[in-house]
Amino acid sequence: MGRTISRWASYPEGVAELKKSHAPRPQQGFAVFFTGLSGSGKSSLAKMLLAKLLERGDRTITLLDGDIVRKHLSSELGFSREHREINIQRVGFVASEIVKHGGIAICALIAPYESARKKVREMVSSHGGFVEVYVSTSLEVCESRDSKGLYAKARAGIVKEFTGISSPYEIPENPEVVIDTKNCTPQQAIQIIVDRLTAESFLAQQ
Amino acid sequence: MGRTISRWASYPEGVAELKKSHAPRPQQGFAVFFTGLSGSGKSSLAKMLLAKLLERGDRTITLLDGDIVRKHLSSELGFSREHREINIQRVGFVASEIVKHGGIAICALIAPYESARKKVREMVSSHGGFVEVYVSTSLEVCESRDSKGLYAKARAGIVKEFTGISSPYEIPENPEVVIDTKNCTPQQAIQIIVDRLTAESFLAQQ
Repeated sequence: MGRTISRWASYPEGVAELKKSHAPRPQQGFAVFFTGLSGSGKSSLAKMLLAKLLERGDRTITLLDGDIVRKHLSSELGFSREHREINIQRVGFVASEIVKHGGIAICALIAPYESARKKVREMVSSHGGFVEVYVSTSLEVCESRDSKGLYAKARAGIVKEFTGISSPYEIPENPEVVIDTKNCTPQQAIQIIVDRLTAESFLAQQ
Repeated sequence: MGRTISRWASYPEGVAELKKSHAPRPQQGFAVFFTGLSGSGKSSLAKMLLAKLLERGDRTITLLDGDIVRKHLSSELGFSREHREINIQRVGFVASEIVKHGGIAICALIAPYESARKKVREMVSSHGGFVEVYVSTSLEVCESRDSKGLYAKARAGIVKEFTGISSPYEIPENPEVVIDTKNCTPQQAIQIIVDRLTAESFLAQQ
């Protein structure tokens, strides 16, 4: 948007080199990182976003949700603070690799600790975009849904270290997007995210 | 190389669609997977290949060697058969993601089990190319080098389950490339691999 720099200051060869190392934003990789309580709707939103972005047809996209991650990266890890941190950092490593190679990573994890989320942001940001989406559905709403019956088990003490009940959830300090599923439809939520990605030029205008 | 198919059988729109899902080989992702004994030279060759491919300047490349993998993906895993299999499959998962997004993954791991290597090959091949490089340096040569002092420790029983001494190494059945570091310089070895990648059209002629 700025003025054109005169040739002595920006040789075309130099500009061409710069373009190689820093692709235009719509061609850069980026990660969308959903965080929120169990039952907040983050996995469903992540899958809808995946479908929405696949429809555009011009990018490779990988979904890294809790189930995929525990299967492929963290089969032996539990839910202690230490293991949760290791788990999130592995996701961060894979997401940053995807972004480095120009792809889109959609992550959906409880990721309850701000420090761990910050580390993922750092890892990914060195290669491309990072958009944190806090799915802020309240504990009361999540617990009343309890689609997997996990809250009941957590209240009964059968499931230990359950985020929101017996393990903390630290609210994100500076998420790029906040979605309260009580106030909007899933379709509206996806549109908010796509609008943000477009505003940041990670997606081209359509 | 085949004859041109007449228009009724291949609409340009269809061809354009196919090109999207199957990029021309020189733009496809691929993995080069080095396997061999400890001290065989696979990590050194992997690093040289990384440098050689980075020089070309047109691709993103990730090196996944034993140290990087144990740090980012498998900090808690040991060297039992079960843990080695899990470790290799994690590398396979990350490599296949890199390849899916059009990147180049260079892996260097002992990877002693044929079954595990086959699984990695399957995971990666569904997204792009897979070139297995067996670094066939003999146990005697590896042990005589013993740059990390590990063979001495393995012989003394201090290091357990050490491949080649107290744990098996299954020779690859159908590797794309075999490198015996006794018969060629590292530079020659890299050229053999680059030639193979070029012959398979994963790298463009230069």
